[in-house]
Parts: sequence; structure tokens; C-alpha cells
Amino acid sequence: MALRATLDFLLRDWLQVQSLSERPRFAEHSLEGYAAVLDSCERIAAEQFAPANRACDAEEPRFDGERVILPASTKQALDAYIASGMLAASQDEAQGGLQLPCVIETAANAFFQKASVGISGYALLTVGNANLLLAHGSERQRAVFAQPQLQGRWFGTMCLSEPQAGSSLSDIQTRAVPDGEGFELDPLGPRYRLHGHKMWISAGEHELSENIVHLVLAKIPDAQGRLVPGARGISLFIVPKHGVDAEGRLDGQRNAVALAGLNHKLGFRGTSNCLLNFGEGGAGAIGYLVGQPGEGLRCMFHMMNEARIGVGLAATMLGYAGFEASLAYARQRPQGRSLGLGGKDAAQPQQLIIEHADVKRMLLAQKSYVEGALALELFCARLVDEQKTGAPEAAAEAAQLLEVLIPIAKSWPSEWCLEANSLAIQVLGGAGYTRDFPVEQYWRDNRLNMIHEGTHGIHGLDLLGRKVVLNGGQALRVLVARINRTVEAALQRPALAAQANQLAAALAQLGRASKAAWATGEPEVALANATPYLQAFGHGVLAWLWLDVTLALDDAAVSSDFAQGKRAAAAYFYRYELPKIGAWLAVVESREPLCREMQDGWF
Amino acid sequence: MALRATLDFLLRDWLQVQSLSERPRFAEHSLEGYAAVLDSCERIAAEQFAPANRACDAEEPRFDGERVILPASTKQALDAYIASGMLAASQDEAQGGLQLPCVIETAANAFFQKASVGISGYALLTVGNANLLLAHGSERQRAVFAQPQLQGRWFGTMCLSEPQAGSSLSDIQTRAVPDGEGFELDPLGPRYRLHGHKMWISAGEHELSENIVHLVLAKIPDAQGRLVPGARGISLFIVPKHGVDAEGRLDGQRNAVALAGLNHKLGFRGTSNCLLNFGEGGAGAIGYLVGQPGEGLRCMFHMMNEARIGVGLAATMLGYAGFEASLAYARQRPQGRSLGLGGKDAAQPQQLIIEHADVKRMLLAQKSYVEGALALELFCARLVDEQKTGAPEAAAEAAQLLEVLIPIAKSWPSEWCLEANSLAIQVLGGAGYTRDFPVEQYWRDNRLNMIHEGTHGIHGLDLLGRKVVLNGGQALRVLVARINRTVEAALQRPALAAQANQLAAALAQLGRASKAAWATGEPEVALANATPYLQAFGHGVLAWLWLDVTLALDDAAVSSDFAQGKRAAAAYFYRYELPKIGAWLAVVESREPLCREMQDGWF
Repeated sequence: MALRATLDFLLRDWLQVQSLSERPRFAEHSLEGYAAVLDSCERIAAEQFAPANRACDAEEPRFDGERVILPASTKQALDAYIASGMLAASQDEAQGGLQLPCVIETAANAFFQKASVGISGYALLTVGNANLLLAHGSERQRAVFAQPQLQGRWFGTMCLSEPQAGSSLSDIQTRAVPDGEGFELDPLGPRYRLHGHKMWISAGEHELSENIVHLVLAKIPDAQGRLVPGARGISLFIVPKHGVDAEGRLDGQRNAVALAGLNHKLGFRGTSNCLLNFGEGGAGAIGYLVGQPGEGLRCMFHMMNEARIGVGLAATMLGYAGFEASLAYARQRPQGRSLGLGGKDAAQPQQLIIEHADVKRMLLAQKSYVEGALALELFCARLVDEQKTGAPEAAAEAAQLLEVLIPIAKSWPSEWCLEANSLAIQVLGGAGYTRDFPVEQYWRDNRLNMIHEGTHGIHGLDLLGRKVVLNGGQALRVLVARINRTVEAALQRPALAAQANQLAAALAQLGRASKAAWATGEPEVALANATPYLQAFGHGVLAWLWLDVTLALDDAAVSSDFAQGKRAAAAYFYRYELPKIGAWLAVVESREPLCREMQDGWF
Repeated sequence: MALRATLDFLLRDWLQVQSLSERPRFAEHSLEGYAAVLDSCERIAAEQFAPANRACDAEEPRFDGERVILPASTKQALDAYIASGMLAASQDEAQGGLQLPCVIETAANAFFQKASVGISGYALLTVGNANLLLAHGSERQRAVFAQPQLQGRWFGTMCLSEPQAGSSLSDIQTRAVPDGEGFELDPLGPRYRLHGHKMWISAGEHELSENIVHLVLAKIPDAQGRLVPGARGISLFIVPKHGVDAEGRLDGQRNAVALAGLNHKLGFRGTSNCLLNFGEGGAGAIGYLVGQPGEGLRCMFHMMNEARIGVGLAATMLGYAGFEASLAYARQRPQGRSLGLGGKDAAQPQQLIIEHADVKRMLLAQKSYVEGALALELFCARLVDEQKTGAPEAAAEAAQLLEVLIPIAKSWPSEWCLEANSLAIQVLGGAGYTRDFPVEQYWRDNRLNMIHEGTHGIHGLDLLGRKVVLNGGQALRVLVARINRTVEAALQRPALAAQANQLAAALAQLGRASKAAWATGEPEVALANATPYLQAFGHGVLAWLWLDVTLALDDAAVSSDFAQGKRAAAAYFYRYELPKIGAWLAVVESREPLCREMQDGWF
């Protein structure tokens, strides 16, 4: 129940989600109602997802020549998810949704991500797909393609990457040409024929749902048949696996979307991952334009913040799962004895390993990473709510904060909750290295998160190259002001003053490095150390959040185990982790040219 | 050929192995002879080991009810290893050995470890087993049990851990009782009957060799049938899988050593790993005492330095393999464009990813980790030679250096070459996460090395708790003196003076922390941060070695690609890595009590 207690505390005492009920959209909700949602999700995750998690790894997706085969327990778990109504968690009640705040939806999904990140993948992609259509699709597209996904009858994908274009989306070569005379009059939207290959498509093929709605980025050639270079040539299309009529009924035609191959992955095997061929050797796959031509990337990235919170949450909950498993092991495994002044007395019984300082160090590090990352994801989800339903000034501030925090929300847990998973293996020792325990799977699963939804390096470039300098540094100033509010509040508490001062110093150091990086104005120079900058910025943000979380601990329960644990995790972060930023920022501040000046031949 | 060029440079220009020919034991050898050994091993590794490495992972060891099944290519590769004569690399020529220095044997084995760490496991365990018998066995034991291993007819294991006793060997419960009247008169050694369970036994069962020689730690009960608590009750036994007569012929009897189960591992699957039952339900497994009763651990750990160099080398070469694979990928994969002042020009062709600063950072980090670790392992192997064949004073100094360096030689590559493997995955991006490329396997394989042959935490305790304080700190003083020689030499070179000063400062910082840790004299207090100490000590040692290696670069070839690469890797280590010790040493120096004071209930 440790996760639930922490979620309740973060939601109620720290983020004060009860205050959302003052807003019209959430007026019908209450803390009790939120608790009921969390109760239900926690139960379904434990009963349906967790028991299926090893099978979805051991029996990885395979193609039998006709169909992609998944374990039966995957379908059973997803059916339970559908029945929970969580696919429409954020939709209007009038349309059958739960009309939940993003922060509650995120907290509820944490249980599923912890229980089985691979199985959760299908559901979360489907929600993302439907939400994108609700935001950018025509009324008919919303009714035909989004509604069946919110009901769980159809599932969705996002088709961005191609074999030759991953991080560099502007280089995609999938072509979409108008489908004959009157193509623009199709009730489902302007009808195109698509030809191309899409790589790394999660949930790209399976038999879990009646249909699969692919959202596909492609380029519409100009009159000379040329593709426009760069991102402005990219449009967005709905490409259903099975053809549908104007009323959304399957028309019995298989669209020209073919599985070209399954990727055999290190982990995250619960979610099938595919190379898809669109329109190979024929007239092309039928696709319906969403929004305007050339607006594809803008539409796709409209939901980017929530998608990246989703990846950050996945990384976080994999870390959490490993923390739970290694804590349970450490509490029951006897090994070794304490180091007294007279050495160890072999005649005494062995201790539990949780009594060894180094094991406690590994558990405390995990706690500080995973609970800190959970606070980060919930904070960002709460900002999404603020952006959507807050007063104008607060909404604008939330939007600014999200600009600079989203790269951290995606990248920080991907790196440090992976490290948490490695520590979980280490706590178990040899046992952790076997498939008899779940921790090795968490570690493999989590290694994906630094790669997809923007690689670590790309997020570093996004943060230092775009977000930090956006509007003359406005977003960064908003963040600094917000952090300073925490520093000032903490300075009022004698027990927190030292951390407050340490945080203020770290913030000053980050500020100096940000300025120094851009002192010459040359992107190549500034961004050569964007990844160490990302790491330092992330540690700074996490230190701030830990201090802010600590401020929310109930004074009346100051010596409770719960409060002591939170304070110890915060203290761990300040004493063992925050000092690491010195090494990372030194190279940023000096604009260390070593890496960019390195020559191929010298390797 | 990058590895070979680096090996040649480290052996000849840095470690000056040619000078070993001045010693009687190596008088017949020359640089040309060593080169021929390396040529041969490089070729066999590339032709027989590398192609078999994926199969030994994909077709992990399985038990068909009678036998443990391995891929045929594993046996074929090991046959080639046997034919190379490397099993007897260090043995006297008079007895059919190659009489090679340890440093050359280590360099030659690097090729096999890089090509397939899992397959190499069988060979290296066999060498270790035979060497231990040659050192501690009777003449008959050497002839009967060591010789067939040096010839590759029999393979060997080390049976230390038990299900309830891994890091805490003093708690083993395997019992050995005298095998009836006249047990002490058996020509193969005092004959005992063993009962017990041994866990995590690498190469514990297979069909690769005619027989398996298990070296087993067990306790001889006292007259009341009680086991003596602690390490002093432990003895060492030879327990062959198949019984042998006094002449070493198989006697047709299967000894009571039974496979109780194969461990299904995250990686390192090329080497079978077993739970073995000794003497279950019967009269006991026949075992022959090696050395004196109660001397088991001492005998087993006699070869400890070489075993730990072997593990460190395995970690290093897995890192090296990932470095090679990711470098090759980065040189052929186009993606993205450079960041000019005017932004990116999408109309230009894509760049190779090796041209991106962040990719170069990831490659340079790998280079600095894996080449630095290789220098460390070769340096330690060279010290083993010095200890065995040097003049008395030099031999004594080498022994002291090995005391403090061996924990680093084992632990540092296990941590940082694993990080190198993660960076290799990151360079490949999505491709690196699939089993279509080898880097994910290297990462999985390497995760074992922080666990076996003493966990990371155990090596931290060994370093700070024993080695650093040994004989009043004598070993540490010898190391500091040796490092200061490097500092002084580097101060003579203007280009290296900054690194020399940085190293001297790091050394002073390490010295202060070592003293501060033990200021109260209480082990619990000093050792609460033994792992951060181990990390900082390791980074200090690697920085020293990189500076020392740089000093050996040929002045005449100062601007060669080779020299530029070595200098860049050293510079990377000084600018990006060495500054990390500040954060690690801060908690050591302040005797940070957070982890040891953490309470179970607070998690």
C-alpha cells in the first residue's frame, strides 16, 4: 500500500486536487470520488495486469503468417481496462467519459504502468490517438474514428518514424496522393492513397480489437511530384487497418496496411512493435486527411505534453515496481552480519540484508528516484489541468512551466528510474539476475524509455536549444520564480533551511551555466554539452520538488514513519545526488569543446 | 584492428613487456613471439567465438532430463581454444605449457572475452581450477585432476556459494565427513563424503568435456557433528563428476553430484549456471581434501587476484565490443543535420550520426571507459608478473599495489563498462533495443559482473574496510607514491601539467576522505559510504592510468590519429569524469550517517 499512501499524500496534501472541484468542469468530483477511481484501478491492475506481465515478456508477440499472436492474458487485462472506463477518463461525462482531471487520470494509470508497462501500452496509445482526433478531427472523424477507441472496440497507433527517419522526422518519405476525382468530398475527410514504410510502430498489428486506427505522418507531393523538404511538408492521415463506411461500419475491405516485420526487442515485449508497409505494390493505403495539409506535425505534437508525461510515468512506475520488489526481498533475505568493533561474530545468526547500510543506501536511492519522479509526473499533469481549466494568468504560467519541465518529465525518469532498476537487481544479487524474479524484466523494459518519444539527446537539445531560450528565456524565468517561492517557504523552517540554501545555490549555478552556454550565440557551441545540461537541470528540478513535497508533510504527523521516509528520501537526494550537478555544469559553463572537436579518425 | 593497436601500444610502449625477457622464466620469449600469440588468439576469437555468441544466448542451456544441451558452436569454439594451447598459457614449457607472462595471457584472452564472454567462461574457469590445484594440490592431485584440464579433456568449476550463503561464505553448510576407515590413505587425497547444495555454479553441468572437476568448499564437522562457525571451519575438496581411479582413468562410477536446476539468467547465458546437489539421499559425493582442513578459503583465494582480473577483463571487453559495434553503426547511419547559425537546412542531405557532438560524446565516453579499463587490467596483470618474477623489492611493491588495486580492477569495469554498453545502445537508438544488433546482449551479459566474484558492495567494504587500512595504510602509501611518480613526470610536459595538477588534487581529496572516514575508528561509521568511496577511488585510479598511458605516447607520432584519440579519451576522463569524485567523497568525508540510520519502517 506504500504507493497508494504516497499518491494520496501527493494529490491531496501537496497538489491539493480537492481545489479543482471549484472549477465547473470538475464540480461533480470530490476527493472521495477520486479515491474510488484509484481504488478501482489499483484493484484491476493488481488482479489483471500484474499476473500477466511475465507472460507478455516470455511469450513475446509472434507472427504466424496471418496474425500477430499475444498471450490470452493480455487481452483479458485490456478487457478489464476497457470495462473500467479509463479509456475515456478525460472525456466529457455527457459523452460517456469520466471527465477526470489529467492529474487523477495520471495517478490512476500509474497502477497499470507499474503492473505491466507492456500491456498498458495498447490502452495509452489508444487514448492518445482518440484525444488527438477529438482535438483536430472533423465531427465525422471524431464520431467514426475516436468514439470506437474511447469505447475500446478499436485501438490506435501513432505512425511517425520510418526506417531512414527516426529523430529526423523532416526526412520522412511516405507519400500521400489524392485518391482520384472528388477525393476531397469523402465524408470521412479528404481521401488520399499512401505509399511508404513506418518503423517502430507500437501496437501496429494485433488481434486485440476489431480495427486499428493508424495516425500516419506523410507528405503530399507538389505538382511536380516532389516532396517538400523539412517539417512543413508533413500532413496527418487516418489510415484504418480495416476499411469503414461513412457511418463507421467495417466495409469488409482490408486496407493496404501490411505487417512487414515484428521487431524483437530487449524488453517492453508486451507491446508489439512493427515495421508496417503502406500501399506496397498497389494503389496505396486509403487515408483521410486530418486538419490542413502541412499541419501534420503541429497536430501530432498537440498532445505531446501528455504523451511525454505518459512515457515519464512508465519509466517512473517501472522504477517503482523494482523498488517494491527489492524492498520486499531485502526484508526477508538473511545474509551476513553487522560490523561491530570486534569484527563479525560468525556464531550469531545472520541479519536481514535490509539492516546493512549499503543495502539501505540502494533502497533509499531508489525511493528518492521513483517517488521524486512520481511527484514530477503528477506536478506536470496538474499543470496540464491548470493550462486547460485555470484562470488565464495561472493557465499561462502553467503553459510556460510545461515548456521547460516536459523535457525533464520525459528524460529524467528514463535515466534515473532505469538506474533504480539496476539497483533493484543489485539488492537481490544473483537472484536478481535470474528470470525467477521480476526485477531483470523491469530493467530491460525501462531501457526503451531513453530512446522512444524523443531520445535523451534530442530532449537535451530541446531543453537548452529551444525551451530555455524561448521568448527571451521567459519560461525559465517563470520556473525560477516558482522554485524561489519554495526556497523562501523552506527558509522559514529551521529543519529545511540547509536544503533551501543548497537549492538556491544549485539554481544560481544552473543560471550561470545557461548563460555561459549561449555566450557566443552559436548553437553548435552552446549545445555541444546539452545532455550534461539536461542531467543537471533534471537533478535541480527533482531537488526542488523534493523540498516542495517535504513542505507539504503534515506538521502533526512529523515523526510518523511516512514522514520520516519522505524526509530521508529528500535528504538522500540533497546529500548524494544534487552535488552531482557540479561535474555536469562545469563542462556546460566552460563550453567544453572536446566532444564537438573530436574527429572520426581518432576513435 | 583498433583493439590490437591499443593492446600493442599498452604492452610495448606503456608496460614494456619486452623487458620481461631479461628474466629467466621469460628468456625464450620476445615481442615477436607475443605478437604471434596475439595474432593466433585474435584469429580464433574472430572465426570461432564471435559467430557463436548470439547462438549461445538465444539457445540458452536447457536440461532434457538427462543432459544439459548447448549449441554445437559452443563446443566447436572451445575445441579451437583448446587447440590454441591457451589453457596452459602460464604453465612451464617443460610440462607442455606456453610459459607466458600473465600480462600476455590476459591480453590474449581479451580477444575471446570480447568475442563471446559466455563461451570463454568454460575455458577461464578451467584454467583457474587447474592453477589452484597446481598451487595447493598434492603431486598426484596435480597429475590426475590438473593435467587433464590443462589439456582441455576435463573442465573445472568453483563451488563456493550455497542458496543461503552467497556473500557470507562463512555460513556454508555443505558437510564433508571422512569416508570410512583408512579414508586418509587414498592416493588421490584424504577421501570424504559430501552432502550439501551449491548455488550459482557456472559450468556446473554440460557435455563439453569427458569429466568436470568441481572444487568445493565444505565444512568438516567436529566430533559432536557440529560445524565450526565462520571461515576457519572451511576446507577445500576435489569432487569429480565422474569417479576416477588413482591413475586418473574414469572408473565408470557417476559421483553423487546431481544437477538440481539450471538458473535462467538475464544474460551471460553462454555459460550454464547451476544449482548442484552433492550426495543427496545417499552416502555422499566422494571428495578429496586439498591442502589442510580449515585452509579452504585461503587456498581458494590464493588465485583470487587473477580471478578478479578475469572478471574485470570480461566486463572491459563487453564494453569494448559495444564500443566497436556502436562506432561502426555511427559511421554508416545518416540522421539529422548540423545546427548552423541559421538553423538546419532540410534541403541538405543528412549527416552521418558520428558528426553529431552528442554521439561523439557517447563514443568518447565509451572509449575512455573501455580503453581505461583495459589499461587497468593489463597493469594489474603486469603486477602479477612482477609479484611472481620480479626482484624482491619490486615484487613486494607489486603485491602491495595489487592489494588496493584488485577491488578496483574487479568493480570499476563492472560499473562503467556496463554504462558503456548502455551508451552503445543509445547510439544505435531503436535499433540498439532490438536483437538484430549485438549491443543489447552485451548490456545484459555485463550486468552480471557487478554481482559475481564479490558484489560491488563487498568490494567497497574490502577496499575501505581492509585494503586501505592494511598494515597501517602501507598499501595505500605505495599506491600514492606510484601515482605521484606519474604526476611528477606529467608536470614536466606543459601539455599535461593541468591534468597532473588535477590528479594531485584528486589524490589529496581521496586521502582526506580516507582519513576522515576512519576518524572515529568505528567500522559501522567508516563503512556506511564504502560504495561511494569505491567509486571515487576507482575514478581516481583510472585518471592516474590515463595520464600514465598518455605519457607513453610516442613524441614522434604526436599528431597521429592514434595519439590524438588516446589524448582525447584521457581529456574526456579528466573533464567529464574525474570531477564526479567530489559528490562521492563528500559523503565519505562527512561520515554521512543517513543510510545507516535509515529505518526499515520508513521505506
